[in-house]
Amino acid sequence: MATGTACNFCRIVSGELTSRQVFEDEVSLAFLDARPLFLGHVLVVPKEHVETLSDLRPAMTGPFFAGVQRVTRAVEQGMRAEGSFVGLNNRVSQSVPHLHVHIVPRRKKDGLRGFFWPRIAHPDEADMRRAQEAIRDALADQK
Amino acid sequence: MATGTACNFCRIVSGELTSRQVFEDEVSLAFLDARPLFLGHVLVVPKEHVETLSDLRPAMTGPFFAGVQRVTRAVEQGMRAEGSFVGLNNRVSQSVPHLHVHIVPRRKKDGLRGFFWPRIAHPDEADMRRAQEAIRDALADQK
Repeated sequence: MATGTACNFCRIVSGELTSRQVFEDEVSLAFLDARPLFLGHVLVVPKEHVETLSDLRPAMTGPFFAGVQRVTRAVEQGMRAEGSFVGLNNRVSQSVPHLHVHIVPRRKKDGLRGFFWPRIAHPDEADMRRAQEAIRDALADQK
Repeated sequence: MATGTACNFCRIVSGELTSRQVFEDEVSLAFLDARPLFLGHVLVVPKEHVETLSDLRPAMTGPFFAGVQRVTRAVEQGMRAEGSFVGLNNRVSQSVPHLHVHIVPRRKKDGLRGFFWPRIAHPDEADMRRAQEAIRDALADQK
């Protein structure tokens, strides 16, 4: 965690800024989003300052998402929801450059606009093959 | 994994249905979404049939999201994206009742509608406190 930082989520982790906390363990803190989509909208952040999912140290990935899983269950149960949305933005559409997972309780016909628009109705097969190969190549480079 | 199942993702895992696969390890399979938001839109599924994130056995959560993290890096790098969206729906808005994480390459002004609408501009403080307590209580019940 950075100290004397301008990062608001680090300031929440350090206690410099208050939050409506719901969960804490060694690696994560979870608190209500101050501008919720729906009541019970929670953010889970790693205590360590990392910007994106890719920046999270692999050793932290399991413990971090174990917390996300537990909080997801609790949001669904506590808010008596029919389901939930769990998502994160890396860089684009990311409001605070400190990794945060949104957990949003969902109900059918709750008015939340799906994130699945626009879709490519009939993607070109050659383009799809090129995308597949580019991602496979990038994975091979990771090894 | 269920055999002789009607679950399309189990059928992809078993090889009964083809997919544009990009990644596989012991617990997960990743392949291009057949109806992508943008080219390079990938789905990561656990090989074991579970419906939601809450249903994933805790021992699988770390390995599963380690794969999600690796594929996220590869989608960003392979598609030369500026960022990415990583998200999943539990029950509501979930098209296939087999846990799947969407990884979507993002670029600024790419036209993807954010999922953050509508927001509650000025949530009531008493409602927020009740939501916090309900989620904390549900977490306490998990122990």
